[in-house]
Amino acid sequence: MASSRKVIELFYDVVSPYSWLGFEVMCRYRNVWNIDLKLRPAFLGGIMQGSGNKPPGLVPNKFLYMTTDLHRLAQYFQVPISPPADPFEAMFEKGSLSAMRFVAAVQEREVGGDKQVEQVSRELWMRIWSQDKDITQPASLSEAAMKAGLSASEVEELLKLSTQEMAVNDNSSHQCGSGHQYQYIHFFHYLTLSLYSLPQAFGFPLAVCHVNGKAEVFFGSDRFELIAHCIGEKWMGPQPAAAKL
Amino acid sequence: MASSRKVIELFYDVVSPYSWLGFEVMCRYRNVWNIDLKLRPAFLGGIMQGSGNKPPGLVPNKFLYMTTDLHRLAQYFQVPISPPADPFEAMFEKGSLSAMRFVAAVQEREVGGDKQVEQVSRELWMRIWSQDKDITQPASLSEAAMKAGLSASEVEELLKLSTQEMAVNDNSSHQCGSGHQYQYIHFFHYLTLSLYSLPQAFGFPLAVCHVNGKAEVFFGSDRFELIAHCIGEKWMGPQPAAAKL
Repeated sequence: MASSRKVIELFYDVVSPYSWLGFEVMCRYRNVWNIDLKLRPAFLGGIMQGSGNKPPGLVPNKFLYMTTDLHRLAQYFQVPISPPADPFEAMFEKGSLSAMRFVAAVQEREVGGDKQVEQVSRELWMRIWSQDKDITQPASLSEAAMKAGLSASEVEELLKLSTQEMAVNDNSSHQCGSGHQYQYIHFFHYLTLSLYSLPQAFGFPLAVCHVNGKAEVFFGSDRFELIAHCIGEKWMGPQPAAAKL
Repeated sequence: MASSRKVIELFYDVVSPYSWLGFEVMCRYRNVWNIDLKLRPAFLGGIMQGSGNKPPGLVPNKFLYMTTDLHRLAQYFQVPISPPADPFEAMFEKGSLSAMRFVAAVQEREVGGDKQVEQVSRELWMRIWSQDKDITQPASLSEAAMKAGLSASEVEELLKLSTQEMAVNDNSSHQCGSGHQYQYIHFFHYLTLSLYSLPQAFGFPLAVCHVNGKAEVFFGSDRFELIAHCIGEKWMGPQPAAAKL
């Protein structure tokens, strides 16, 4: 049985509302499809910069459309998205580097599953994309992690870990040209390994489905029907009745 | 019964392969859903320029991804997409202005339906996005139209009509600044009227669903499930069994 389970890696960043949609749908379907879902918290800023991609919201008409699109999708997917008052400040000025480092640290320490990674990610999305709250300050990360069920001492250790890694990277950054790029590479090492062999990456969410020894890459939160087809499962909409939520 | 039919306008350009997917799916569903589908052949170049949007394929990783994505979608949707050897030449250097003028002329003259518009559009897509053939020369447009069942004399008149309109526009273009913009506005007058009240336009395909006096705009060929939800119909995949093809 185990050998027939298809591995799906889901790369996401809590700065991205479309990632949230993809995340919730995949978390629901991990209980419905015969899949092994691997959460890959990652840093969208690095992917955008590395690929030379520009955020779609910079085109005014696209921004207007995306506002409508997100609102409709949030209702249909039943994910409580409510854009921050100043999305540009939240997404581009403040960003998600410290938040995603923190989630990566959670994953680094978690054993026996990814329930903490899932819940901390969700609480961070709740902050930035539902309640218009900060996700850059240690106190904000701490609050999200406590809500997700982590203890105060665990949170303290995780904050330290993500800062430590940052220091290591900062020290080594001169060896690799762009410090930013290197920090990204070092800290999210598994992401880097995967993306090095995936020249198609330019944004999140990104689902990588491993089927018959081949990696099929799907961008966005609108390819679930195709993903289902690709892995031989059935798409039942964003809220499958059979999901054990 | 007629009053309960929901009007869906589908804006498309044969230069866009994703438009082809959207077009075929909507043409299938017009026989399944209780809708009144209105085909809106239009000029993507004008929309891109007007909105300041850039073609997604200019980001190398996105181009790579789209090649894979289109291949998978073409198989799943059963639309015979096969990219031209040089997509940039076909899409950006040669473009679709004369082709879409021709389709608009077909629509201008057609009475009692849109079978000709549908078939000429499909034949043009077959040329550029399946057979790697030209769609800019009169002989190419003529060949596509004859394949679509139009007579030689009809084709001749349509070629004349689209050229005439061009002349009219050219003469008036100095009144409006950009001649290009004006040509687009003049010739595709219905498109302009619609888009003036739709500030969300930045690309094709664009489906505008008129529901309870409100226009709901959907971009891309990946919102059919949401469109179905929006108009109170059921999405049955890209090839609904009940479609009378």
